[in-house]
Amino acid sequence: MAEDRLSKQFDFLTEVDKLKSVLRANTLCGASRRENSGEHSWHIALYAMILAEHANRPIQIERVMKMLLIHDLVEIDVGDVPIHGNHDTSVLEQRERAAADRIFGLLPADQRDTYRDLWHEFEAAETDDAIFAKSIDRVQPVVSNLATNGGTWPDFKVTEEQLENRVGVKVKRGAPAIWNHLKGQISAYFAT
Amino acid sequence: MAEDRLSKQFDFLTEVDKLKSVLRANTLCGASRRENSGEHSWHIALYAMILAEHANRPIQIERVMKMLLIHDLVEIDVGDVPIHGNHDTSVLEQRERAAADRIFGLLPADQRDTYRDLWHEFEAAETDDAIFAKSIDRVQPVVSNLATNGGTWPDFKVTEEQLENRVGVKVKRGAPAIWNHLKGQISAYFAT
Repeated sequence: MAEDRLSKQFDFLTEVDKLKSVLRANTLCGASRRENSGEHSWHIALYAMILAEHANRPIQIERVMKMLLIHDLVEIDVGDVPIHGNHDTSVLEQRERAAADRIFGLLPADQRDTYRDLWHEFEAAETDDAIFAKSIDRVQPVVSNLATNGGTWPDFKVTEEQLENRVGVKVKRGAPAIWNHLKGQISAYFAT
Repeated sequence: MAEDRLSKQFDFLTEVDKLKSVLRANTLCGASRRENSGEHSWHIALYAMILAEHANRPIQIERVMKMLLIHDLVEIDVGDVPIHGNHDTSVLEQRERAAADRIFGLLPADQRDTYRDLWHEFEAAETDDAIFAKSIDRVQPVVSNLATNGGTWPDFKVTEEQLENRVGVKVKRGAPAIWNHLKGQISAYFAT
């Protein structure tokens, strides 16, 4: 029994290694190369841990960290879709759901259900934990881009208004103090 | 007050981005390139989350995940030291303590103390949480190496006995069922 569970668990843990080869639109803070979704997931779990006090609703940090550790696994099948790119949302959602079924399906049935549900909770962004997790997921690329003189914003022709509408709105839902803190730096960047 | 805390917290979160540029001895499971310590930290936090049931003593998974997210930050200053390499342990420990003081020192004082203490707890490997976290940290490279036909073991001339003495002993302290599960695969690798 334990052997069978361990086999499935290691199949899953080996499969998810592939997330380290999914490249994102943004770079590292030093701009030396593009960031991958594995290291991004580490960084934002750490963001959540350090910034938890700024959530505007009570959250369970253990659930938030678990959500963030798994939130991008579907990209193993679907790839990273930049927030500032153009894509068909409903087709993408369908592909992501299929990816979640496949990847979490590698786990023993109880864990498959637990983590697939946690991923759906993150995507739905309706619970306090998921809303805060989404805020944190949106914040990290902003900080990276600010740290690299705009980073990939010029490539995507991002305006301050777009940032406010596509990113700020989501960050403010879960952690308004964090967006307020970054807003001055964002305005300063676009003013130059 | 919140502004001052946020400034320090973002200073820390931006500094730790450098962990994504610290290369480890082992490669990804596909052997395409060497793994970095940021993505390694993500992967083992996920390992802990999925494998928690195999801990041989009661653990608090939230604390274990936090430990694993921060356990390698000192490598930003010290670099990764391969377990199968040769090095002066006391000099290394001194350098790692200084690195922990510097890096966690970027945080507000309360968080500095919390996370520096958590890192020391991990290093000391005396509490149940730390013992399990250490087990998990040791397991992931073994799985990567098994998945890539021995990976970097030949480079370090690693023998089955060394693996048992340097890795197996530590994994068994916190999660004997996991080492038992891998042992057959390890023997099969060294038998070929």
